[in-house]
Amino acid sequence: MANASSFTHLDETGKPQMVDVGEKNATVRTAEAESRIYLPPAVLQQFDGTELTTKKGAVFQTAVIAGIMAAKKTPDLIPLCHTLVLENCKVHIAVEGSEAVIRCTVKTTGKTGVEMEALTGASVAALTVYDMCKALSHDMEIVHTRLISKTGGKHDIG
Amino acid sequence: MANASSFTHLDETGKPQMVDVGEKNATVRTAEAESRIYLPPAVLQQFDGTELTTKKGAVFQTAVIAGIMAAKKTPDLIPLCHTLVLENCKVHIAVEGSEAVIRCTVKTTGKTGVEMEALTGASVAALTVYDMCKALSHDMEIVHTRLISKTGGKHDIG
Amino acid sequence: MANASSFTHLDETGKPQMVDVGEKNATVRTAEAESRIYLPPAVLQQFDGTELTTKKGAVFQTAVIAGIMAAKKTPDLIPLCHTLVLENCKVHIAVEGSEAVIRCTVKTTGKTGVEMEALTGASVAALTVYDMCKALSHDMEIVHTRLISKTGGKHDIG
Amino acid sequence: MANASSFTHLDETGKPQMVDVGEKNATVRTAEAESRIYLPPAVLQQFDGTELTTKKGAVFQTAVIAGIMAAKKTPDLIPLCHTLVLENCKVHIAVEGSEAVIRCTVKTTGKTGVEMEALTGASVAALTVYDMCKALSHDMEIVHTRLISKTGGKHDIG
Amino acid sequence: MANASSFTHLDETGKPQMVDVGEKNATVRTAEAESRIYLPPAVLQQFDGTELTTKKGAVFQTAVIAGIMAAKKTPDLIPLCHTLVLENCKVHIAVEGSEAVIRCTVKTTGKTGVEMEALTGASVAALTVYDMCKALSHDMEIVHTRLISKTGGKHDIG
Amino acid sequence: MANASSFTHLDETGKPQMVDVGEKNATVRTAEAESRIYLPPAVLQQFDGTELTTKKGAVFQTAVIAGIMAAKKTPDLIPLCHTLVLENCKVHIAVEGSEAVIRCTVKTTGKTGVEMEALTGASVAALTVYDMCKALSHDMEIVHTRLISKTGGKHDIG
Repeated sequence: MANASSFTHLDETGKPQMVDVGEKNATVRTAEAESRIYLPPAVLQQFDGTELTTKKGAVFQTAVIAGIMAAKKTPDLIPLCHTLVLENCKVHIAVEGSEAVIRCTVKTTGKTGVEMEALTGASVAALTVYDMCKALSHDMEIVHTRLISKTGGKHDIG
Repeated sequence: MANASSFTHLDETGKPQMVDVGEKNATVRTAEAESRIYLPPAVLQQFDGTELTTKKGAVFQTAVIAGIMAAKKTPDLIPLCHTLVLENCKVHIAVEGSEAVIRCTVKTTGKTGVEMEALTGASVAALTVYDMCKALSHDMEIVHTRLISKTGGKHDIG
Repeated sequence: MANASSFTHLDETGKPQMVDVGEKNATVRTAEAESRIYLPPAVLQQFDGTELTTKKGAVFQTAVIAGIMAAKKTPDLIPLCHTLVLENCKVHIAVEGSEAVIRCTVKTTGKTGVEMEALTGASVAALTVYDMCKALSHDMEIVHTRLISKTGGKHDIG
Repeated sequence: MANASSFTHLDETGKPQMVDVGEKNATVRTAEAESRIYLPPAVLQQFDGTELTTKKGAVFQTAVIAGIMAAKKTPDLIPLCHTLVLENCKVHIAVEGSEAVIRCTVKTTGKTGVEMEALTGASVAALTVYDMCKALSHDMEIVHTRLISKTGGKHDIG
Repeated sequence: MANASSFTHLDETGKPQMVDVGEKNATVRTAEAESRIYLPPAVLQQFDGTELTTKKGAVFQTAVIAGIMAAKKTPDLIPLCHTLVLENCKVHIAVEGSEAVIRCTVKTTGKTGVEMEALTGASVAALTVYDMCKALSHDMEIVHTRLISKTGGKHDIG
Repeated sequence: MANASSFTHLDETGKPQMVDVGEKNATVRTAEAESRIYLPPAVLQQFDGTELTTKKGAVFQTAVIAGIMAAKKTPDLIPLCHTLVLENCKVHIAVEGSEAVIRCTVKTTGKTGVEMEALTGASVAALTVYDMCKALSHDMEIVHTRLISKTGGKHDIG
């Protein structure tokens, strides 16, 4: 085999790299993220107080599942995210005014946080709402996606 | 960031959710599952006592690999399954009478069991047998898929 | 580059290989497959006539989605399946006696059939039912998985 | 095999289902979507007029790649999306004021539109920007994600 | 919705982008690629003239399957590759002197070539050989991976 | 449920199987692998001393990301590899003479080594270089892929 010491790296400014989490402690970490999606009247009138139903089926039920599955796939989607073992992931959806409010909470015991998992879960749930309602109107819009809280790392937030 | 307390969930009856395994102990867990697939005579006559060979190749060899790879993908397939680190996965196939009997055993040290991994591995191995033999006959049928045993959780089975 | 003619293959008996579908015609092809899963009384009593609900949520809704998503992943699971563009995939679940009956129908315009997609969709939907009910009883069993019909290839079935 | 006609579906209200696109015409279809992400001063000062660079590397370069790869994975993420063959996918990122503006354009010749691919590509690019800058500040927020234009279906938009 | 014309791109030098293949003709395209892996004596003595067998099982059988499955996953691995429908993929492995010679051939009818699929299939088959033999020796080495021939695009090769 | 003891395996010679790592210790494990790709003059003249740029964009930047993402997907590609939680993965690329030299280093705390992750990361980075430069010349060739060093198992190497 080659001599491991014979290789000198070029200047690596800007080269993408993961953060080495090997020295961090494995602690319980949680994160909660939120996406809000604007539902125009043609969509909102399909909401019965609990579920939004279109010809593609029960929108919130489907979006909850899509969000949970996407949270598990986060390291496949976000290039520099670490692979993780998730201990819990929940997605809840409520309607507030003309917006569907999606909350995704994720929990792990690990060396790195789960905010990207929470944000990814919320985002894909919102995209799924869009997909299932777009035959009714294209005036939907994901009006924001943000972190609500995180715990277990150096700095808690929220 | 938003106020974490401002969000009241709707009634969540029926909303899909993972089980929070954060408080469980990480223990050694195993599971064994079985799928049986009926092989009609046109298929069975390709069995030489060890391997079943069709124009698509060595059926059991291929099915074993497909089963192991599928067991590793279980959290991508079953929406509410936890991601897990597998320590072992084996798939064995035997012929009993006119059936191919597929056994998949999975092992982990973790907070949740591996029966879905074992059942998924056995099922996909059976589907692979079907795929590789279907040019000979469509009278095949996966006659059952069931859990044989599990250990390491609250209740051992089998 | 190397000379393409310098390579002599070993005897390839039993080596896995895809079927070359390049010369086939692209036709409309459909397939329908069925999985049946036995639901013991502890599970069946959660059925309200339309949906089966456990602490993990709405079982049939979730299983329908898992089945559709798995049908789309078939070429990732079954080693020698061709990649395909699916034009439709539906999963329906009914309760007959003590069994949940899952039907998955798939449609494409392509050079190869979709029976493996239908069988994979039905199987993963059945595994999802198992996963969501297993806290109630492990006496469940997928009692069979089989092809119901296929059209569009050389031989229609069903 | 079972009799295909013996199966009566339950009431399927709300059951998730794909739209059957088998009868649609294969036409050239395009879509463009946009995500905007607010960059607080601690992040924005890392922008040199062309690229935003953090200790994780070149942010926009990485986000462009993540967005393109995610657009290709759309049918794996959005449960009822059709599988598609993409002919082109581009992601461009610019800074306008305190926001990074991400545009994702997707093109196919197919039976169904590509707006979900464009929206997914833009969303995952935005999430990647978040991931690579979050060590500097958590005051980032994806301020919206929306469709800009689509062509090739029944109704052009934008 | 926003005005599609209001967006001016920054200078995009170096930004990753796919090639737009929308205007290309769909033709029959094939490619063949080769990987060679050096097998040290401790590995080579496990070769019986047809198959190489270690405690992990039949090496070439497993590598053939891994190569075919990887060829199908090429657009997931190579960021700017187009998604494609493969009509055929074959992997053959022979031993020549102290090397295993892996040939992967891929075929499609499409708007873009399949050389990356062939190269990816050959590479992953070689990596699988490495994985299954590495308990015997780490002196293995993939001695090259190259394109052997391609047909169906503007320029045939090989 | 069936009696777990009633099943007698056939002779399993050659059947693919994972190694059971359940009894191994979780230790810090690292591996470094290298792929070298020959760049013919038409490609090499696009190298500016730091980055290689083609009409597909910044080649090394893109290849670094592809390599990291592929290292995370290793258990999906190599059939008998264990699933792992990676703590770090870095890919560096330099030009030496007429070759691009790709080094991939991977780190975990786990029961099994990460050499396949390092080799897979290096290989897919090399394939990505090939893909992004192939419009300039097909005389590229991955001239070797090999393990440079590994630590943390029974035997350190390199």
